[in-house]
Amino acid sequence: MSTPIIFDTDPGVDDAQAIAIALAHPDIELLGLTTTFGNVTIEVATHNALLLAELAGQRIPVAQGAAEPLVKKKNPPPGHIHGDNGLGNIALPDISTRAVAQSAPQFIVEQVNARPGEVVLVAVGPLGNLAAALQLDPTLVDKVKRVVVMGGSIREGGNVTPVAEANMFNDPHAAARVLQASWPLTLVGLDATHRCVLDPASMEKIARAQGDLGRVLAESYAFYRAFYQKALGIDGCCPHDSCALVWLLRPDLFEVERGTLSVVTDGLAEGQTLMAPHSRQFVDGRWSQGTLADVCLNADGPAVIAWIVDTLTANPAR
Amino acid sequence: MSTPIIFDTDPGVDDAQAIAIALAHPDIELLGLTTTFGNVTIEVATHNALLLAELAGQRIPVAQGAAEPLVKKKNPPPGHIHGDNGLGNIALPDISTRAVAQSAPQFIVEQVNARPGEVVLVAVGPLGNLAAALQLDPTLVDKVKRVVVMGGSIREGGNVTPVAEANMFNDPHAAARVLQASWPLTLVGLDATHRCVLDPASMEKIARAQGDLGRVLAESYAFYRAFYQKALGIDGCCPHDSCALVWLLRPDLFEVERGTLSVVTDGLAEGQTLMAPHSRQFVDGRWSQGTLADVCLNADGPAVIAWIVDTLTANPAR
Ligand SMILES: [Ca+2]
Ligand SMILES: [Ca+2]
Repeated sequence: MSTPIIFDTDPGVDDAQAIAIALAHPDIELLGLTTTFGNVTIEVATHNALLLAELAGQRIPVAQGAAEPLVKKKNPPPGHIHGDNGLGNIALPDISTRAVAQSAPQFIVEQVNARPGEVVLVAVGPLGNLAAALQLDPTLVDKVKRVVVMGGSIREGGNVTPVAEANMFNDPHAAARVLQASWPLTLVGLDATHRCVLDPASMEKIARAQGDLGRVLAESYAFYRAFYQKALGIDGCCPHDSCALVWLLRPDLFEVERGTLSVVTDGLAEGQTLMAPHSRQFVDGRWSQGTLADVCLNADGPAVIAWIVDTLTANPAR
Repeated sequence: MSTPIIFDTDPGVDDAQAIAIALAHPDIELLGLTTTFGNVTIEVATHNALLLAELAGQRIPVAQGAAEPLVKKKNPPPGHIHGDNGLGNIALPDISTRAVAQSAPQFIVEQVNARPGEVVLVAVGPLGNLAAALQLDPTLVDKVKRVVVMGGSIREGGNVTPVAEANMFNDPHAAARVLQASWPLTLVGLDATHRCVLDPASMEKIARAQGDLGRVLAESYAFYRAFYQKALGIDGCCPHDSCALVWLLRPDLFEVERGTLSVVTDGLAEGQTLMAPHSRQFVDGRWSQGTLADVCLNADGPAVIAWIVDTLTANPAR
């Protein structure tokens, strides 16, 4: 039985691979892509979402969303990681499709209300669209099946600051709203995604199976890989955003702990996610006031990579 | 060759054991104990410092210091962990000695200036005294041999909040001042001390060797142990403060990484220590602006415990 999802994204190299999985996997019914600024500007994000669906030969609604953070000033997009075009600065074909008329938050509200209790929101960029959707319709908390967020870091340290992961850092106020809302939520952060490294040989297998889409995935991966080699000294890339979908279909590959999440909105630790484990008491109650979430603290990295490669080779793009 | 140290402390059960080590070890020349609020009120801290030295049969100067944090409101002392008297609420003998006339910061300034380049400041409580000493005499940064701080947590999570260790949380502004000053500094935090668990059998060996002092150490340990069992589910206690002295004499038992430290002074992450590793670049420079410090990220726990037991059994109290 396939799960209906809305995939909220800022593509982005690792977003692109995750979109390929969402388009390919028979157990996922992709209701739409909603876009946000983050790895790229909102215009580039929407362009890339449309392009990736076209390359896979599928007509999927794309709804454009947040161009900026809720409160803080926008950081410049990290062109040195994802390229200025979000896909490693490779040459890209023209697109022939356009975004739907609804904004991303409106699209989310309509889709979830059309199928209450069924839709999973998978968010792999800054969380402005989900925060705005909650503002439009607070009853969403009882109507989504689950929210799966790629972002944050509990014990692993950050990737853009010593403690903050990029999606949280890019809009900490939206993240605080989303991570403390009373909906069932799973956080797939760096504690899990850093256990997973997609090596060049695996990428070649994916590229061969995915046709025109595979070429874009492989060439943008090469750019992203150069950043990983220079900045982190590893040969390969963490498929951060794909991990959110892996959790959705193979939660057994992750170690999960229940806890209350907070997000730091100001100061040195801006964008940090804090987890108060359900089993621990702290000096006062302010860290334990939200809803309990499922927080991934580890992953079976090789098994996650094998699942990604299997998914993208067993379900070739048309 | 013995190292002259000033031991800045808020005794406290684990402080008491560390003081016993500082009094006993032939390679340590204990110039004085300086006291601070923290585990207990400042009056109790000074009383206990005097008592512990008396029980060991030694006349060591005790200088009283900070009664409150620099900026934030004082938290109530954690009587459920250390007891209201700081030593597990056991009956304690009367004391016959008194603190010196100088305040703790003044004592630190005088001692360091009397022996420039020689003195190590070992601080195992909130850092107000060291911050105040820097304010009195900024040239201390070039005159101390080193500063060793027990406190903070980089990857391990906190003990009083999900991210903050107690000494940092109790005076984050003082901690920020001390951890970013341009003196040679080693941080021995929960990443190292949580690897070390002192079991009841080891405590019995220590008690037998340390006479009257040993009785106080053992009985207060029993109270502290009950807290560890209830709150953390482990049988034994982490000898946090002793670890700072173990690092001083046996740095080979620790894994150290160089990095720039920051301390969060406000908000949800208040009291958290952040390390920007020297080898990494982040989204902007504000986390990397201080002085490079040596940060303990791991310890050989069994070897640390064995060293503590050896030290306190091979050098019995008179
Ligand atoms: Ca993303
Ligand atoms: Ca202490």
